[in-house]
Amino acid sequence: MTNPDLVHAIRGGIVESFHRGAVAIVDADGAVVQSLGDVDRPIFARSACKVLQALPLVESGAADAFGLTDPELALACASHGGDERHAATAASMLAKAGLDETVLECGAHWPSNDAAMKALARSGREPGALHNNCSGKHSGFVCVGCMLARAQGRDAREFVRGYVQPDHPVMREVTAALQTTTGADLANAPRGTDGCSIPTFGVALRQLALAFARVATGHGLAPGRAQAAQRLRKAVAAAPFFVAGDGRMDTRVMERLGERVFCKVGAEGVYCAALPEQGLGVAIKIDDGNNARAAEVVMAAVIEARVRLDDAERGFLRDFSDLTLKNWNGIEVGALRASPALRSALG
Amino acid sequence: MTNPDLVHAIRGGIVESFHRGAVAIVDADGAVVQSLGDVDRPIFARSACKVLQALPLVESGAADAFGLTDPELALACASHGGDERHAATAASMLAKAGLDETVLECGAHWPSNDAAMKALARSGREPGALHNNCSGKHSGFVCVGCMLARAQGRDAREFVRGYVQPDHPVMREVTAALQTTTGADLANAPRGTDGCSIPTFGVALRQLALAFARVATGHGLAPGRAQAAQRLRKAVAAAPFFVAGDGRMDTRVMERLGERVFCKVGAEGVYCAALPEQGLGVAIKIDDGNNARAAEVVMAAVIEARVRLDDAERGFLRDFSDLTLKNWNGIEVGALRASPALRSALG
Repeated sequence: MTNPDLVHAIRGGIVESFHRGAVAIVDADGAVVQSLGDVDRPIFARSACKVLQALPLVESGAADAFGLTDPELALACASHGGDERHAATAASMLAKAGLDETVLECGAHWPSNDAAMKALARSGREPGALHNNCSGKHSGFVCVGCMLARAQGRDAREFVRGYVQPDHPVMREVTAALQTTTGADLANAPRGTDGCSIPTFGVALRQLALAFARVATGHGLAPGRAQAAQRLRKAVAAAPFFVAGDGRMDTRVMERLGERVFCKVGAEGVYCAALPEQGLGVAIKIDDGNNARAAEVVMAAVIEARVRLDDAERGFLRDFSDLTLKNWNGIEVGALRASPALRSALG
Repeated sequence: MTNPDLVHAIRGGIVESFHRGAVAIVDADGAVVQSLGDVDRPIFARSACKVLQALPLVESGAADAFGLTDPELALACASHGGDERHAATAASMLAKAGLDETVLECGAHWPSNDAAMKALARSGREPGALHNNCSGKHSGFVCVGCMLARAQGRDAREFVRGYVQPDHPVMREVTAALQTTTGADLANAPRGTDGCSIPTFGVALRQLALAFARVATGHGLAPGRAQAAQRLRKAVAAAPFFVAGDGRMDTRVMERLGERVFCKVGAEGVYCAALPEQGLGVAIKIDDGNNARAAEVVMAAVIEARVRLDDAERGFLRDFSDLTLKNWNGIEVGALRASPALRSALG
């Protein structure tokens, strides 16, 4: 099955490049309300499913036991830009659990936020694990591990070692949350290793969208899990800077629309959203893996089509789904926009 | 027409993402020796055609008049990384023409080479036009303008002003070189504005490949133009650092294979090559515009299939066409490789 072209990059009046992909919009009963392209092919959700992976952080009691704040819970769901405020917030989560960044197993990379990266370079320092875009998620995993260690009377630092491994008690909790929300049989799903070294599972786009419909509504989840999902959504809506960062679409959309949209981008052109007012989950996968100029355009077009917006909000989203491209001299050279096929399908 | 998938990104044993595109391999008579996908759709060659745009620099006599060196001629064909050696070489070209960077109209951006960018950030300076990846090409344009000004007894600085405009005498020379090498009717072709503000024209991939077959062989070009093409190819082979930079595929391939391959990447997934021993031109366009992990993989596979290589050289190319992907912890997480469809077609 050839997926439809969803995004066009225009230059000189013609389509210079384009992006194909698939979109699943699903309700909490698992009914596919709308689909474009192949929504059954297994895809790796990557960082788009961090909110699902953060459910044990709340359900385990760790969030309450350690007094985690909204920014900290948002950071647990985040692919952050490596700003010093992000790094400090991850450090704070670890400190509340009585540990520090030396337990993190996500690896280090330079901040993806350009200003943060240049500031770090100017300071003459090198990035550490706290700057990794996944440091909040990993700090959340460590908090879960500390709760499990407490319950078993074990030393926390020793207990959490190897938490990224599929069979570690922490990762088993995380995988179980992924399994019950998506309804996928993860024991028999393709399994890869993510950028931050934890397992990532191949699930159908429709299953991923179902998980987000469940996050949106709580339907189909045990009461404690439904409450955890709602708490995480509300934390991100209250502190959207911490789920991504300056200039990033996730942050900007949730700053603007608050709890009406929970959206989260992942590597390789995956983008998911929970739309609580509509009771829907959305999952997008761009064939070629492009986030910034493909998955984001499609997500904006989906939000425009599905969420009740006023004119100003519609204009705000349009700046993501139909944008002018300028060159280094600030001259308009083209546009990036949702394809006619996508607009037509979304209605 | 749906282009075939040419590159697979593999994770967890499945294809996570993939890139479609088209390939044209053409001889100097314009015969299509091999094609995959749509080679007739107009595409913007972008920076892949810089060697064609540099022909007037040699043909006009500017290269001789100003005593341009191999690194300077290579830089005129370059999308360089913004290393200080690149910036200094562009400055040297301008100085030889009696001018300086204030005449450049390419705009400024941070170096694409990571080490160069961080070094500039650490120094507390901001990037200038000399750091623009196109500064060598633009310095070449300025040299052409200075020759034209001399011939007309005009002030050079005043004459070159506005050289990026389609109707400026310099750009008319550049466009004429593009027209005669590709055989395209550029007056009636789609015209866009490139990242560095000069015009870019939509030409069929087969026409672009033909231009590179002509660069490879000189066949079909006037003697002066054929000599200019050969001189530029030899300059790049002699100084491949200056056509791209540290770690870049163009530089690495020509460091290794010398004059046997002239290859040049462009924005939006375009990649062209001249294969002098085979008398062939190659032009690649990735539908989604991805260079680093799509166009480069395809080009490496084409070179493997078409150029006579020893085993070590074949292994060298294979590192571009079939590579292991590692994460931030250095753990192997997948692979990036020429698709079975591409390998099979190339034979």
